[in-house]
Amino acid sequence: MARRKHTVGPRLRIFLDPEFAIGPGKADLLDGIRETGSIAAAGRRMGMSYKRAWYLVDAMNQHFREPVVETAKGGRAGGGAMLTPLGEEVLMRYSNMARLARKAIEPDLKQLMNKLAGEPENSG
Amino acid sequence: MARRKHTVGPRLRIFLDPEFAIGPGKADLLDGIRETGSIAAAGRRMGMSYKRAWYLVDAMNQHFREPVVETAKGGRAGGGAMLTPLGEEVLMRYSNMARLARKAIEPDLKQLMNKLAGEPENSG
Repeated sequence: MARRKHTVGPRLRIFLDPEFAIGPGKADLLDGIRETGSIAAAGRRMGMSYKRAWYLVDAMNQHFREPVVETAKGGRAGGGAMLTPLGEEVLMRYSNMARLARKAIEPDLKQLMNKLAGEPENSG
Repeated sequence: MARRKHTVGPRLRIFLDPEFAIGPGKADLLDGIRETGSIAAAGRRMGMSYKRAWYLVDAMNQHFREPVVETAKGGRAGGGAMLTPLGEEVLMRYSNMARLARKAIEPDLKQLMNKLAGEPENSG
């Protein structure tokens, strides 16, 4: 995957069982599939290989009770893909968790950012 | 690093600037140094190489305004290491952020866990 520029704040990886997690990569991929209607295009805009994007979608489809992504009949490349209702829910809940976590940690995060080299001193 | 058994729930990596994050690895390392009084021993119990443990400590010492870990005079291996007051604060705040984030995401996490293959259906 291409190196992303990280924004300041939390990145959340949530283990739903000991071997399966939803993190920023899978969430961004679901978001991309919703926006582009294509697993390949969604992966491409993240700098992710086609193979990797399919692997992540398949892992999600296997671990959840129902698929999160549906591909057009035949499953040919370029045939199109869309989120199922469960896929929409997974994406919505991940975004919600990321937002809530960001808000919950904000005071401690600000205090730590004040302790970085080269940052202005505030409350010490 | 040795493969760790993941517990269900969030793992939080917090970017304090675009190139510097505190995550479970650095937090566990600080915790280990506090408990063992040694960077090498702290790394060892995480299955982390001596070199990697020193690298992570050095990265933290460089990015914060003051060091987070102090080594005994001479800096010889086995000379002992301890957290500075800032190191204690970083560890305390990380633990606090992890606890607050876990609490904040709990309702959504439970809903998603109910949608896993093989899990009992609750609220649908």
